[in-house]
Amino acid sequence: MPYQNTSLSIEERVEDLLPRMSLEEKVAQMRIFHANIGVKSDEKGKLVLSEKVTEKLKLGIAGIKNPGEHISPLAAAKLNNDLQKYIIKSNRWGIPALFITESYNGVDAEGCTKFGRPITSAASFNPELVNRIWDVVGKEARLRGMHMCHSPEADIVRDPRFGRMSEAFGEDTYLTTQMVVNAIKGVQGNYEGLGNGTHIGAVAKHFAGYGQVLGGSNFAAVEISPRTLIDEIYPPFEAAVKEARTLGIMASHGDLNGVASHGNPELLTGVLRDQWGFDGYVVSDSNDIARLYYFMKVAESPEAAALMGLVAGIDIDLYAEDSYAYLPEMVKKDPSIEKMIDRSVKRVLRTKMILGLFDNPYVDIKKVEKEVRSEASLALAQEADLESIILLKNEGDILPLKKEKQKIALLGPLLDKGTKTAFEEVAGNTITFTAEQGFELTDGNTSVPKMRSTTPDELDKLLDIAKQSDVVILFLGGDEFTSKEAYFNIALGDRATIDPVGAQDELVKRVKAIGKPVIVVLKHRRTLSVNTISEKADAILDGWDLSEFGDSSMAKIIFGEVSPSGKSPVTVPRSIGQLPFHYSMKEINNKKGYLFLEDGPLYPFGFGLSYGKFAYSNLSLSSETMTSTSEITVNVQVTNIGKMKAKEVVQLYLKDEIGSVTRPDKELNGFEKIELNPDESKTVTFTIVPKMLEFTGLKMEKILEPGDYSVMVGTSSKENLTAKFRLEK
Amino acid sequence: MPYQNTSLSIEERVEDLLPRMSLEEKVAQMRIFHANIGVKSDEKGKLVLSEKVTEKLKLGIAGIKNPGEHISPLAAAKLNNDLQKYIIKSNRWGIPALFITESYNGVDAEGCTKFGRPITSAASFNPELVNRIWDVVGKEARLRGMHMCHSPEADIVRDPRFGRMSEAFGEDTYLTTQMVVNAIKGVQGNYEGLGNGTHIGAVAKHFAGYGQVLGGSNFAAVEISPRTLIDEIYPPFEAAVKEARTLGIMASHGDLNGVASHGNPELLTGVLRDQWGFDGYVVSDSNDIARLYYFMKVAESPEAAALMGLVAGIDIDLYAEDSYAYLPEMVKKDPSIEKMIDRSVKRVLRTKMILGLFDNPYVDIKKVEKEVRSEASLALAQEADLESIILLKNEGDILPLKKEKQKIALLGPLLDKGTKTAFEEVAGNTITFTAEQGFELTDGNTSVPKMRSTTPDELDKLLDIAKQSDVVILFLGGDEFTSKEAYFNIALGDRATIDPVGAQDELVKRVKAIGKPVIVVLKHRRTLSVNTISEKADAILDGWDLSEFGDSSMAKIIFGEVSPSGKSPVTVPRSIGQLPFHYSMKEINNKKGYLFLEDGPLYPFGFGLSYGKFAYSNLSLSSETMTSTSEITVNVQVTNIGKMKAKEVVQLYLKDEIGSVTRPDKELNGFEKIELNPDESKTVTFTIVPKMLEFTGLKMEKILEPGDYSVMVGTSSKENLTAKFRLEK
Repeated sequence: MPYQNTSLSIEERVEDLLPRMSLEEKVAQMRIFHANIGVKSDEKGKLVLSEKVTEKLKLGIAGIKNPGEHISPLAAAKLNNDLQKYIIKSNRWGIPALFITESYNGVDAEGCTKFGRPITSAASFNPELVNRIWDVVGKEARLRGMHMCHSPEADIVRDPRFGRMSEAFGEDTYLTTQMVVNAIKGVQGNYEGLGNGTHIGAVAKHFAGYGQVLGGSNFAAVEISPRTLIDEIYPPFEAAVKEARTLGIMASHGDLNGVASHGNPELLTGVLRDQWGFDGYVVSDSNDIARLYYFMKVAESPEAAALMGLVAGIDIDLYAEDSYAYLPEMVKKDPSIEKMIDRSVKRVLRTKMILGLFDNPYVDIKKVEKEVRSEASLALAQEADLESIILLKNEGDILPLKKEKQKIALLGPLLDKGTKTAFEEVAGNTITFTAEQGFELTDGNTSVPKMRSTTPDELDKLLDIAKQSDVVILFLGGDEFTSKEAYFNIALGDRATIDPVGAQDELVKRVKAIGKPVIVVLKHRRTLSVNTISEKADAILDGWDLSEFGDSSMAKIIFGEVSPSGKSPVTVPRSIGQLPFHYSMKEINNKKGYLFLEDGPLYPFGFGLSYGKFAYSNLSLSSETMTSTSEITVNVQVTNIGKMKAKEVVQLYLKDEIGSVTRPDKELNGFEKIELNPDESKTVTFTIVPKMLEFTGLKMEKILEPGDYSVMVGTSSKENLTAKFRLEK
Repeated sequence: MPYQNTSLSIEERVEDLLPRMSLEEKVAQMRIFHANIGVKSDEKGKLVLSEKVTEKLKLGIAGIKNPGEHISPLAAAKLNNDLQKYIIKSNRWGIPALFITESYNGVDAEGCTKFGRPITSAASFNPELVNRIWDVVGKEARLRGMHMCHSPEADIVRDPRFGRMSEAFGEDTYLTTQMVVNAIKGVQGNYEGLGNGTHIGAVAKHFAGYGQVLGGSNFAAVEISPRTLIDEIYPPFEAAVKEARTLGIMASHGDLNGVASHGNPELLTGVLRDQWGFDGYVVSDSNDIARLYYFMKVAESPEAAALMGLVAGIDIDLYAEDSYAYLPEMVKKDPSIEKMIDRSVKRVLRTKMILGLFDNPYVDIKKVEKEVRSEASLALAQEADLESIILLKNEGDILPLKKEKQKIALLGPLLDKGTKTAFEEVAGNTITFTAEQGFELTDGNTSVPKMRSTTPDELDKLLDIAKQSDVVILFLGGDEFTSKEAYFNIALGDRATIDPVGAQDELVKRVKAIGKPVIVVLKHRRTLSVNTISEKADAILDGWDLSEFGDSSMAKIIFGEVSPSGKSPVTVPRSIGQLPFHYSMKEINNKKGYLFLEDGPLYPFGFGLSYGKFAYSNLSLSSETMTSTSEITVNVQVTNIGKMKAKEVVQLYLKDEIGSVTRPDKELNGFEKIELNPDESKTVTFTIVPKMLEFTGLKMEKILEPGDYSVMVGTSSKENLTAKFRLEK
């Protein structure tokens, strides 16, 4: 049949297939179910489907989430081949299904390479590295038999109370945009990889404003000015669509200024499709169309919720049994609905054709074991760690430690079982390591964990080890229970404070009181106001949530194999009470001070020390004026006046001195990571283009406003050289 | 001349006067200076003006802030008569000036009755009482020779970090609206009092969104959805204009979603005048027109700032030497500007005529001493206290205390010099009081106070006294240094936490450990998360910031002369990390829980115990359905099943079960304060009218939406009886 003819265009094939389908078959192409309702393999690897699943598959299905999640890549590939074969055979038109995964730190499935989390890789300030990570994600997922990925997150995360902040790329719009574009290009194989069957489609999420939930509380409402929404929250999504050509977009759980995102046509159709030209599909977040009725309370019935989602522009209903399932009945009452159904089904079929699923739906089993978790991929995971670890403090250049005979204690609640071995492998035999976790932070309850109180004995034991050591390395921060995705009150993951949990401050105080050098390694998934740690530790290395080689990477940095070069992707507040607090807030917010609290952040955005030492000089602009059609070239000389080869992230910030609306104090508009040997000097060049100066003006249109601008170039958002130029009419 | 002819209408008189005036004279009617630049009286009470002042007065002046602020009412009245006489004589047309004061707790000047702060009187839930308070304010101010008052605040204050929160009426839109309307009607003598010369004009402030400054930080930006702005922030202002006929409106310091309020024509002209029909004048906040240039950075020069303010609709420039002062020069370059100047000057002249200043500009000196601080006014101040004190806890009905022989300790940092005497006067001779402050919270620096650390001796001394007493009353909370108006970083007043300052928690813990009954009296100007106090104290009485008779009022409540009947005008959070947190947040926000923190507020909005005990029963609705033209009558029976006569605030909340936009969890829509003897029963009646159900829909228009609504009636926002009705089309 024509739709099977590969010599026709995708559009022609879709137009041929759609009219053949029954209404029920169409609606089936708008639904995804989770494999946990009955997709398994038995002991011999044979596909086993529940009756519920086989019943559903008779009509075909848009996609299945996580088939083969908990089995090896090879077993998953085989299962998914069998499953796809079954699906194609089961439905009248042989329409294949999308198999869908996620990626927070590599493919979210058994046996794939585990990278650091997105916020960790954001700290690398290295988009090319992020591109290579997601290229591996795309390849490993496709080799497992997956086709789509409900990732990456394009949200701007500025509230560390939010349990999911580590799943996104930090507080900054520009940095997040660079990372999201590179993640999508990576996972999709620059789009061309989709047709080749080597990569998978991305679904950028959560559109829009998910990072802005009130109180950092998952599922809460969002209050944001329309201007901030456009200028600061939309850009990563716009770039995901226009630059990276993401195949999918997922809507956001909550509301946006009162309008439920899943029922928002202005957002999902007006902005996304009409303004940006998005031609992929929009998928709901789990159950969120049904939730328009039973949770958001903006629809009077499940059917009304389904209609609302459809009108808004949601093509696929994720999981819910009680929303798009009603569409066939609804069409009987109101046949005009079918047009909207057709529109969505076309988008889904089109996606499947772009991914080559009609023509080549199966994985080449031979490749799987060789190419998943390849040496190169594993090396990349560590390479990324080494570019992402942030040196927050290094009093008296105590780091790097020498690989010479000494006793080192590895202590604290974030110590892992493999930490000691990892350190021994890096440091060699001359050093004696003693490792002791001492205490855990919580009782380990996965839904509603309780904080554990530490006994005096537990602390004393750690102190005893510390006393017998030359250097103490404390592993502190937060674990998987103290920051995670919250699910209403059933599973808590958001916090009302960002102070370190439990006895950690006391531990660092008491170890410091012994008089031994204290190095703190931070592991965490939310920003922590590490005031006491910051005061007491001699050195602090912040890894956020590193790859499976995290401890080894930390050891390599501690012993100076590589200089740290990560920069903070967030502003670190001194107190939860300083929120909202990000470096690019309007200047008028930064005039603030609070009673009894030191001003400013504990660590500014973009901050990170090095074993090298970088001197910035000769900041120069190619012109003191610019027009709407010209550019300015910025040059700055950076010299490593330290004693060790090191990488540095040279950062460009721009500031509009006067605007018709109140303007950010400064905004990141460029960065470049360079490597310099001692005494080596490089000139780094940025180009300021008019687009960088655009913002949403009084009339809610993007404008370019003549006037004075400041250019700041330096090692963080706080320390930099400054120059000025004038934008002429 | 016609403008002096009292038989002509105000409009006719203004139209006659304006064309006579020079441009410079007009602009002078758009400026206010502060008396501290040179308005004084010498030792004999003779008016002394600085050269700067006499120079200004040659052209006339819109108004002068605070003349005679620090002298007695009689001396001020004389000074202001002399000053007015001088002004009328000095300018060509004999135009009188407005003398302007403020009121946070009574006229902000020497020798006037000191009431509790607005948030205190909000706790009374008694608008009629607030009306009587502001009636006294209006009369006492006019008797001092004042004509306008830069009060009341119509802001919604939901962020207790904000140092000025006690100047407004709390978190709730409905409660604030009732209080603002009654304050303005009181201070203006129901508008008719203005012409009679018995009252003064109100200036409702700060328009709009001042309570929403980010981070609770004075001068910061505001981010709010347009819908919330209209539905929750505007109503007190709209009612101030339409119901209470406020003479003036003051703009807000900051921005509103990126647009500086002082340069926002949509706000100051579109909403205020075109939509609401406001015909009074708009005054800037101190220097805020000039600040459009040098602080907000939305104007390229002082002249551009002046033009921006003028175009937006600001009629009077408060204080700045460098904004409206440039208008005459600007008109020379662009004569079209004069039209806008004329518009503003007319509004100012009109106000002066409404106040009768052209015809009867002087105070009747004879009345002053008799009528300011009259017995009735002072009694009212205490009456208001007695209705405003909130009983937060009363374990085992420990309160009221009996006036019988016992030793009572009065301890803690919020103890005043007069506290002991006040308690002795109320309790009589049988009780022995020992009073000891023990320690202060701060070093008393008025600009940037430091927290004081408490010495062990200081605490021990208090503990010793406690041990020798039968009952301990602790005076805790915050003082005038721990919560106040912040002025950039020069004077701090905002805080990043709402925990009680210093050793207060330790004090209550240690006193409790002794085993003596502990009663805590709270005095404060911001919401405090009094977790420890709440846990340890046997009883808590929360007075916020009471009148000059505050300690006496507390004693009367403690010893049972009156039952407490105040209700909390705010939600009291357990932690600053729960913000934003007010009871009327959308239901979707209330699904939240945080790790390691008990759910919900420490005390809910509307909460307050009594020495009586109120049983609610027989909630009934006159109909189960309602239309856009009908009403529903709600009846509820309230019975005092306790043993003491007491007042209770019966509260009506409404909830829209399903809306086209996400809706508040519930909203206060009525309350009535009743008094019941033991065993007495009353039926309280509320009327639900369609207007109560209106909200801003998807199209940003006010709509009434058919569907189910819940009616909740009870003693707080949390405990209530529930019924339902349906709004039909």
